[in-house]
Amino acid sequence: MTDTDPIKERLTPDALEAHLRAIGEERYHRRHPFNERLHLGRCTLNEVRAWALNRYCYQRTIPRKDATVLARLDDVEARRIWRRRIVDHDGDPGDAPEGGLRRWLALTDELGFERDYVVSQQGVLPAVQYASEAYVNYVASQPVLEAISSSLTEMFSPTAIQERVSGMLRHYDFITPNALRYFEHRMSEAPRDVDFALDYVKRNATTADLQNRVSAALRFKCDVLWAQLDAIHYAYVVAEPPPGAWRPPLALNS
Amino acid sequence: MTDTDPIKERLTPDALEAHLRAIGEERYHRRHPFNERLHLGRCTLNEVRAWALNRYCYQRTIPRKDATVLARLDDVEARRIWRRRIVDHDGDPGDAPEGGLRRWLALTDELGFERDYVVSQQGVLPAVQYASEAYVNYVASQPVLEAISSSLTEMFSPTAIQERVSGMLRHYDFITPNALRYFEHRMSEAPRDVDFALDYVKRNATTADLQNRVSAALRFKCDVLWAQLDAIHYAYVVAEPPPGAWRPPLALNS
Repeated sequence: MTDTDPIKERLTPDALEAHLRAIGEERYHRRHPFNERLHLGRCTLNEVRAWALNRYCYQRTIPRKDATVLARLDDVEARRIWRRRIVDHDGDPGDAPEGGLRRWLALTDELGFERDYVVSQQGVLPAVQYASEAYVNYVASQPVLEAISSSLTEMFSPTAIQERVSGMLRHYDFITPNALRYFEHRMSEAPRDVDFALDYVKRNATTADLQNRVSAALRFKCDVLWAQLDAIHYAYVVAEPPPGAWRPPLALNS
Repeated sequence: MTDTDPIKERLTPDALEAHLRAIGEERYHRRHPFNERLHLGRCTLNEVRAWALNRYCYQRTIPRKDATVLARLDDVEARRIWRRRIVDHDGDPGDAPEGGLRRWLALTDELGFERDYVVSQQGVLPAVQYASEAYVNYVASQPVLEAISSSLTEMFSPTAIQERVSGMLRHYDFITPNALRYFEHRMSEAPRDVDFALDYVKRNATTADLQNRVSAALRFKCDVLWAQLDAIHYAYVVAEPPPGAWRPPLALNS
């Protein structure tokens, strides 16, 4: 069975989980050529910069995405659990301890970007903006089961993050552990978030039809991540950035 | 002055039009490498097929986009004029005379796609879907002036369409005038639509601030078109389609 064949008879919860993991194997962006390039040390400094700048656009939509889901959850306990995601990214007032967005800016700082420029999002690829917005619109407009299912790409992120952190530290002399501290935190946050979401999905997707919706939601989300790397790879590796997007300074081009 | 320098003092209506035309020179997708390739006869059959399949996704969002604008217009006369855009694309009941969407399907028919497959949009690139949806969301959420201004890429389409039709007929033996009849109609529809929208913008953008919004709206829309061709060029010319997108049949690959 490939991951787009419809589920015809209800799967057991564990078989559903196995189905979702198979989707990750096929479609999670760990396999994207840009990620492979990034992790294997084949990116130039400016390619890493382009990735960090654009990925910030996605990062900053995540708390809005999670607030959109939060607004649709009826159950107090579910909301308490989901709320932690927003705290993880936004931090607390005063930002000590800092949230994930600040940690991401530590990376763009070390890569030499002005913080105001990154936060302004002026140079971001339109395709990355559209994909990020598509994710927010999806969780706003689809049933709650799909909204929660779409977060399940986190099932696959620890492996990718491990490859990324170890690969980037080994291969790039311009990358320090401090610049990658966003990922260190994700290694503990993501599995905790998955515990809730996967349990929710396994308990609530009780028919083949609902399981197909869960499957489609996870594929949707894999597409969102993949499309961002397509755009970054196109603009900064194989072709040219579109009009208006960030262009590497010539002197820094390597 | 480049097209992203803010307008500091109110431009005359004609100077505003000149400013908008300068944006088109810089950012309209006529200059995109995929369009140049398409018009100069350098595309393979499968690249033309990928373009037609994906562009249908954009085409089909246009009547929804125009209905979204229509829903926000207060003035009866403006609505009567705007409504023609929807008729142009959707046609009339029974579809005689046919609308633009049917005419686009004449192209995908001749390129060998099953009509059901095209209409299902199954194989479309996610990035093309996101860009199309971003356009609808933009006209839903921005002020009416920006919603109308974003249509002004039509100022630049007749030149591009002329290049496209003559280039494709000259270079591709698999393209007939019948397959391109969508474009023949656009040659008269687009200038009529521009007459209204450009007049509206010139009359209503009465301050430098409003003129900057008009300018940003047109740049936004240029990005929407450009991003679609980036995605098509990446997936079908310079790299690989993402998981789940249409893949050219090997036997037809040329």
